[in-house]
Amino acid sequence: MPLQIPQIPEKIPDIKPLRRADTLGLDDPATAYIAYNDKYIIVFDFSSLDVSEASKQLSALLSDLESVGLQTEIRVGYDESLLVFVQAPRELLGNTVHHSRVKDWLYGITKKHPGGNSNSIVAGDNEAEDLQSLYHLLTWSKELGGAGITPGFGKWENISSAFPLHNPIRNQKLLVHLSKKFFLSSDDLDQIRDLWGTKVAFYFAFIQDYFLSLAFPCVAGVLAWAFLPKYSLAFAVVICIWCTVFLEYWKIREVDLSIRWNVRGVGKLKVNRPQYRYEKEVVDAAGRVQQYFPRWKRIVRQLTVVPFLALSTIFLTIVIGTVFALETFIVEGYDGPYDYYLEYVPTVMLALLLPFINNWLEKLAARLTEYENHRTEDYYEMSLTQKIFVLQSISNYLPIFLTAFVYVPFGETFIPHLRTYILSLAGGAVDPNFAFHVDSNKLRNEVITLTVTGQVSSAIEELALPYLKTNARDWWRTWRTTHTFAMGGQTRFVRGDDPIEARFLRRVRKQAALAHYDVHEDISEMVLQFGYLALFSPVWPLIPIGFFVNNWFELRADIIKITIEHQRPAPIRNDGIGPWVASLEALTWLGSLTSAAIVHLFGFHNATVYGLNTWWTLPITIFASEHIFLGFRAGVRWALHAIGSEHIRKERSELYAERKKHLDELEASSAKRGHLDVVERERRKSVRMTASDVFWTRQVEEGASMRAGLGMIRALKGSDFDEPMKEE
Amino acid sequence: MPLQIPQIPEKIPDIKPLRRADTLGLDDPATAYIAYNDKYIIVFDFSSLDVSEASKQLSALLSDLESVGLQTEIRVGYDESLLVFVQAPRELLGNTVHHSRVKDWLYGITKKHPGGNSNSIVAGDNEAEDLQSLYHLLTWSKELGGAGITPGFGKWENISSAFPLHNPIRNQKLLVHLSKKFFLSSDDLDQIRDLWGTKVAFYFAFIQDYFLSLAFPCVAGVLAWAFLPKYSLAFAVVICIWCTVFLEYWKIREVDLSIRWNVRGVGKLKVNRPQYRYEKEVVDAAGRVQQYFPRWKRIVRQLTVVPFLALSTIFLTIVIGTVFALETFIVEGYDGPYDYYLEYVPTVMLALLLPFINNWLEKLAARLTEYENHRTEDYYEMSLTQKIFVLQSISNYLPIFLTAFVYVPFGETFIPHLRTYILSLAGGAVDPNFAFHVDSNKLRNEVITLTVTGQVSSAIEELALPYLKTNARDWWRTWRTTHTFAMGGQTRFVRGDDPIEARFLRRVRKQAALAHYDVHEDISEMVLQFGYLALFSPVWPLIPIGFFVNNWFELRADIIKITIEHQRPAPIRNDGIGPWVASLEALTWLGSLTSAAIVHLFGFHNATVYGLNTWWTLPITIFASEHIFLGFRAGVRWALHAIGSEHIRKERSELYAERKKHLDELEASSAKRGHLDVVERERRKSVRMTASDVFWTRQVEEGASMRAGLGMIRALKGSDFDEPMKEE
Repeated sequence: MPLQIPQIPEKIPDIKPLRRADTLGLDDPATAYIAYNDKYIIVFDFSSLDVSEASKQLSALLSDLESVGLQTEIRVGYDESLLVFVQAPRELLGNTVHHSRVKDWLYGITKKHPGGNSNSIVAGDNEAEDLQSLYHLLTWSKELGGAGITPGFGKWENISSAFPLHNPIRNQKLLVHLSKKFFLSSDDLDQIRDLWGTKVAFYFAFIQDYFLSLAFPCVAGVLAWAFLPKYSLAFAVVICIWCTVFLEYWKIREVDLSIRWNVRGVGKLKVNRPQYRYEKEVVDAAGRVQQYFPRWKRIVRQLTVVPFLALSTIFLTIVIGTVFALETFIVEGYDGPYDYYLEYVPTVMLALLLPFINNWLEKLAARLTEYENHRTEDYYEMSLTQKIFVLQSISNYLPIFLTAFVYVPFGETFIPHLRTYILSLAGGAVDPNFAFHVDSNKLRNEVITLTVTGQVSSAIEELALPYLKTNARDWWRTWRTTHTFAMGGQTRFVRGDDPIEARFLRRVRKQAALAHYDVHEDISEMVLQFGYLALFSPVWPLIPIGFFVNNWFELRADIIKITIEHQRPAPIRNDGIGPWVASLEALTWLGSLTSAAIVHLFGFHNATVYGLNTWWTLPITIFASEHIFLGFRAGVRWALHAIGSEHIRKERSELYAERKKHLDELEASSAKRGHLDVVERERRKSVRMTASDVFWTRQVEEGASMRAGLGMIRALKGSDFDEPMKEE
Repeated sequence: MPLQIPQIPEKIPDIKPLRRADTLGLDDPATAYIAYNDKYIIVFDFSSLDVSEASKQLSALLSDLESVGLQTEIRVGYDESLLVFVQAPRELLGNTVHHSRVKDWLYGITKKHPGGNSNSIVAGDNEAEDLQSLYHLLTWSKELGGAGITPGFGKWENISSAFPLHNPIRNQKLLVHLSKKFFLSSDDLDQIRDLWGTKVAFYFAFIQDYFLSLAFPCVAGVLAWAFLPKYSLAFAVVICIWCTVFLEYWKIREVDLSIRWNVRGVGKLKVNRPQYRYEKEVVDAAGRVQQYFPRWKRIVRQLTVVPFLALSTIFLTIVIGTVFALETFIVEGYDGPYDYYLEYVPTVMLALLLPFINNWLEKLAARLTEYENHRTEDYYEMSLTQKIFVLQSISNYLPIFLTAFVYVPFGETFIPHLRTYILSLAGGAVDPNFAFHVDSNKLRNEVITLTVTGQVSSAIEELALPYLKTNARDWWRTWRTTHTFAMGGQTRFVRGDDPIEARFLRRVRKQAALAHYDVHEDISEMVLQFGYLALFSPVWPLIPIGFFVNNWFELRADIIKITIEHQRPAPIRNDGIGPWVASLEALTWLGSLTSAAIVHLFGFHNATVYGLNTWWTLPITIFASEHIFLGFRAGVRWALHAIGSEHIRKERSELYAERKKHLDELEASSAKRGHLDVVERERRKSVRMTASDVFWTRQVEEGASMRAGLGMIRALKGSDFDEPMKEE
């Protein structure tokens, strides 16, 4: 793909007014305009170090920051920590931004050279761009021209976090703006991108599109609920179609947005993660030193995921299965003392157990992923989130699977036995004529509970709890800190913070104490929700409505969450939601199996009588539905592919516009061919003598070929030679 | 992706010795070196025209050729046709080659600008490249700088063909070379590319790799045949694995070759096919006029393929099914008079019928594809060949399907009824105690016959027959032509050809009479063969050996075929075997179903007793095997993707090498940052007075931050203030 040739302009392109301003301005609205694009906070926690070690590390940190030309101010943080305020001088920041733009151009991520030369100083188009460059200055290795600060890792394990400051005014604006709008336009997404970078923006783009497209299943759901039988096949089909179309649409949308935000293929630019261990350094064809770790080795290592997932699946199945069995038994079968209270025991148990188990498994997954030794942070995250997602889906969907495919169909058969067995264990009296009847609504109730309560509880978990928690901790720490200094006894610190900085520092300390924001958690929540739809839609057609309402709030709530309960995310670039698309596709596929099975078992056949007939036709139903789904998906893909993406076409024609310039110049020359031709004819005559050209010089004279040809035609047609030529 | 900036060199790059030489040289080995890179033959058949019309068209043709600067010589052809010899002057050809190279660069197909300017004259790297440019000069529309000659279409419907001349010496060399080698290296493929262009070369690359990879199923087959039971599951699995791995390998290989041959993504460059009908011309963003035909319309039109294929499938099923039933009946059931002869009637019937039916259906398919109105020849070919392929597979595989899944399992049941029924029709005596026993070897025999005879017959069809045919026709025509001129009576023509041209002209006339070569036919043959393996491998494990042997000859035979029985193909460029990969994948997928079913029916269960049990477990078997296959395929893809393609990596690092030049210059500047830093510090001091900078100027002095920080650490650690600083 050709690129515009970089012109070295006479003068450096003029620069936007830079955003240096009163750091304290926030406190008096008069000077409210304050720069957040060039500031970064590093939290140095030396509680585990003695004075000398701490000071060593601090001086190392400061000199590393100095070495790339960053400015520092130090203030005390909570407990035994220091806040190192980092600011990039306008020349340095502007220059870094320019460099990274040029680099984007060189790697073909943007199509136009930004102009300017290697000393150019430009202002980023938005805070995110500036902060990204600042982030690179801080975190990139020294070879890449960064300070090589890697919070919590290796040399810098005592740096508990490094984060940019929230921009409260713009956060405020954004929130107000979004809460007014029902639908988010791409421009609104741009605003999010400007604040927190594309990686986060893509999540909001996804939840927005997903939310909108939910309108369709909502309508379908209401209709199905009103007019269709329970466990309706038609509804299942509709949902399956919706899932497919939405996914294929999203894939195109992802490309469009990544072109809009100039991040398409940005993955290539990602640098090695500090934890990456390489075997040797090789100099490749292009003469660059590459840190080589054999691919096949990583592949082999990644294969360990298979046993891991297999085992943890089995484990979870056993745990959940047991609790499930117990519950069923107590609820349906047990009629001894305290049964009213006992009913809740298993559920409570599970509620208490699962978090621990999951947490433990996730730790294992993290270790495993670490062992896989991925080169970039991206790959690492992908690999990890995928593992975690599988674990989550198991603990989320398994109960429903058990109800649908074990409890309801087989309950009649095994529960009495179970009861007898347990009672015999308990040594209780077995009532021989105990009859048990499966509650065929259990499935529906279970799905409703799981989805609805899920939404609510997650909302509380995400918003209310952390809010209270942080505030409490915050209050306590403020008290402690001030207290410390009161007791500290050094004259220098008696008065604590300088009063004009106080409020600013309080804000920073608060943010320093906040958690790091991981966008994948929010995405996985949406994916799990999507999964309920894809897998169990026929059970209760009104599910989508709940989701629709929830997601409208979810979107806004997540923005609040980021602004209040998390440190401002470093504006990392990404060109999509990455591996989640694959997860969504897997769920849709699986859905074509499960919903078919559900319809088959609960829709076609009386849900309480299961003959052999039910069972041996089941695989056929599943098989059919799966292949109809696959066929349909292929169709949709083909069609959407044929229609193609508007942005891609736009991009192409932009490229073409540049090429055209070159082509024109080339085609201009084709005029000359005429004379080439004449020249050639002369040449041909001149060489007529040489035997080699005999053949090609017979009809060289003007019109000779024509006369010869005409003669032949006449001859072959046997028409009279002397008749006047009609065409003369 | 950045490209090297086109330097305008002082002097035009010096040119290889051009290949103009004695056209007649072929006849005396002394002057054997002759140029085929700049000659094209146009056959003008005016048998349907009267003299004046014919001469009009001829003059139009000649002037169009002149207009782009091509040289012409005319000689008589067979019957009422003229041979228009077209030759491109070296300046014109060299310049066109240069242009198309620049165009490749502009469209990002090659990474390096070829250098030179718009008047540069270069020699193609090989005949194919030159001929391709000549082909463009002839066929491209006038707007694109071609003569707009479209043989057999529109204005030029009387041009029966236009083709480059075969290069007998190099053909000879190639054949000898290949017949000596057992394995073809990429260099050998290069030779084919040099002669006939990438489109043909890719076919040979495919058959070569396919042939090699067949070695594995051969060995497996022998082992299975020796040690495994009939219809062995293990063997079916092995073959399925092999299919998958081979396909995934081939996909990477395709990319590698297309990079090696500089044709990656060459599809973008394809021009509109003359038959393309557009609705309106729109000027797009880049200001180019585009012939617009709404995408959705094409999609809708393409949907007509569904009913078409459905109907023709049904139709073929009925035809083949009937014949099949008749045959079975006569062979197994009928014992009336002449049964010995009658046995063969149905087979003969089918053999006579099928070609007609297929031919007719293929004509329909062609019409349909025409109606779909594809923009480029490529799309048209793809769409057509895919349709034809489906039809072919039906008539090839259906008989086996019928035997495997109808005749053998159900024969016992329905054949007696069939017999009774037909006899009752025939009014013959029904023998009540007639017992029929399925010949459970029928399936194996059928597969063997179909595959083996298929190979042999196709070999005859492709080689022997056409050879005889052309020679006969050729002899007859030569006689006729000379005869005509003897009778012609015009003094000018009495002597017929100029003796020194005679042999050359005979060769050209011969080639003019040959058929156009369609590479897709050869590919589809291979794909069908692959299909037998993928679908029915467990039936007879020795099949692959037959294929292995056949394909070694097939490869060479196809080269002979092209050189002797076809006009030299125009060197069209392609970056793969296109849609055939999809067909191969479809077959592999289908294979995971069919071979599972075969193993289930013939392997697990006694092939003559089919209980309900057999049937209701069948879908489960199929379902399982399919999903194992899909899982495995996903795994292979993931692994091969992770390993990646060597060429792609090479390409990337070449790109990088170019970028690096720019980057170096940019990174050089980062040295300056040090002083930026100093400057900044001065600035900060100077502005200390302004309130806004109070915060950021407190620790501006050298080491101030450090001292402050150390103080705080000490304070917080509560260690004595006056103790000497360890690190000083």
